[in-house]
Amino acid sequence: MKLYTYFRSSAAYRVRIGLNLKGLPYEAVPVHLLRGGGEQLQDSYRSVNPAALIPSLQDGGATLTQSLAILEYLDEIHPGAPLLPADALGRARVRALALTVAADTHPLTNLRVLKYLKHTLGVSDEVKMVWYRHWLAEGLATLEALLAGNPGTGEFCHGDTPTLADCCLEPQAFNAERFELDLAAYPTVARIHARCAAHPAFIAAHPARQPDAE
Amino acid sequence: MKLYTYFRSSAAYRVRIGLNLKGLPYEAVPVHLLRGGGEQLQDSYRSVNPAALIPSLQDGGATLTQSLAILEYLDEIHPGAPLLPADALGRARVRALALTVAADTHPLTNLRVLKYLKHTLGVSDEVKMVWYRHWLAEGLATLEALLAGNPGTGEFCHGDTPTLADCCLEPQAFNAERFELDLAAYPTVARIHARCAAHPAFIAAHPARQPDAE
Repeated sequence: MKLYTYFRSSAAYRVRIGLNLKGLPYEAVPVHLLRGGGEQLQDSYRSVNPAALIPSLQDGGATLTQSLAILEYLDEIHPGAPLLPADALGRARVRALALTVAADTHPLTNLRVLKYLKHTLGVSDEVKMVWYRHWLAEGLATLEALLAGNPGTGEFCHGDTPTLADCCLEPQAFNAERFELDLAAYPTVARIHARCAAHPAFIAAHPARQPDAE
Repeated sequence: MKLYTYFRSSAAYRVRIGLNLKGLPYEAVPVHLLRGGGEQLQDSYRSVNPAALIPSLQDGGATLTQSLAILEYLDEIHPGAPLLPADALGRARVRALALTVAADTHPLTNLRVLKYLKHTLGVSDEVKMVWYRHWLAEGLATLEALLAGNPGTGEFCHGDTPTLADCCLEPQAFNAERFELDLAAYPTVARIHARCAAHPAFIAAHPARQPDAE
């Protein structure tokens, strides 16, 4: 399998965690999101993924896009080390937690949105960072509310083994630390982040450990 | 089942379509997103869904959130009229199309984002609508690129029966028409939209047909 990735892309980070959790080897193909105005916007990458977004996964002759769709696919064809619980309500909870990050938080703080704010709306770097931290804090507060005190929450987001939800939580926690947003306000998120950060599959997926890390 | 809904919410509209496609009866509980500063932000609704977002689905004693997680759950426990194809690659394609709307497009044009642009960043209504149309057009262009000429595309997004992808496409097409964004630039999206708009399950889910329509 070939993963088009960028070391700091949250969405690629999610898929790297999932691949590692399942012990699936893959070839990393770096796509630099900033160099030359963004390699993901060039025709060579658009021919792989018309959405011009990272990641894409090539498996045999097929190209898959969208991190959550890729993770669900990997879980279906490689059922060992499952990313989803065995019961329908558990799966719904894990998917809702994952989407809280992947749909409600991350798209608002994505590179293309920050570029639009700066270059089209003309906001200052300071206002851009206020925007970033606002939506990140909203997302973390929602995650905390969904996790804290819920009997489904264990060492990880759902039970004591990592799921799709942790594949999403950990890159978001990395972003929070990178932009100096204190996780202490979200104690359950912080606790699960610490647990993930000590897990070999998460460690190997960390941006700093990627071949294209800067 | 009880669906917390708002007639014009894209995410609630998706779930209404899915419920109708499966022929599942439900009780609609309207939550007005604008009245009184937003009923979804009040404690009475936060006790249902801490994310303070629409929709939520109550089924027996369980409360489910996030439209895509709800649709996957309904598909698992009511497998008739499946919302996902039988093969793993087909499911990955349908989920990627759905996420193109639900993660990459709709969250950027959501009410809470428009309110933040206006009230916190202080942009004019005109700039707010430029933002709205920009991300909507980006999303539609990506959908068109993923659909046009792909052998998987049929009368609907994937084959000749509606899937999770159509549950997401149709509310987005409704938004485009509402905000006068011409779908002619996206001929495959426009063709599938026309097919959906003639389908009884989509017709019954339309915002104008809801008990809380204005």
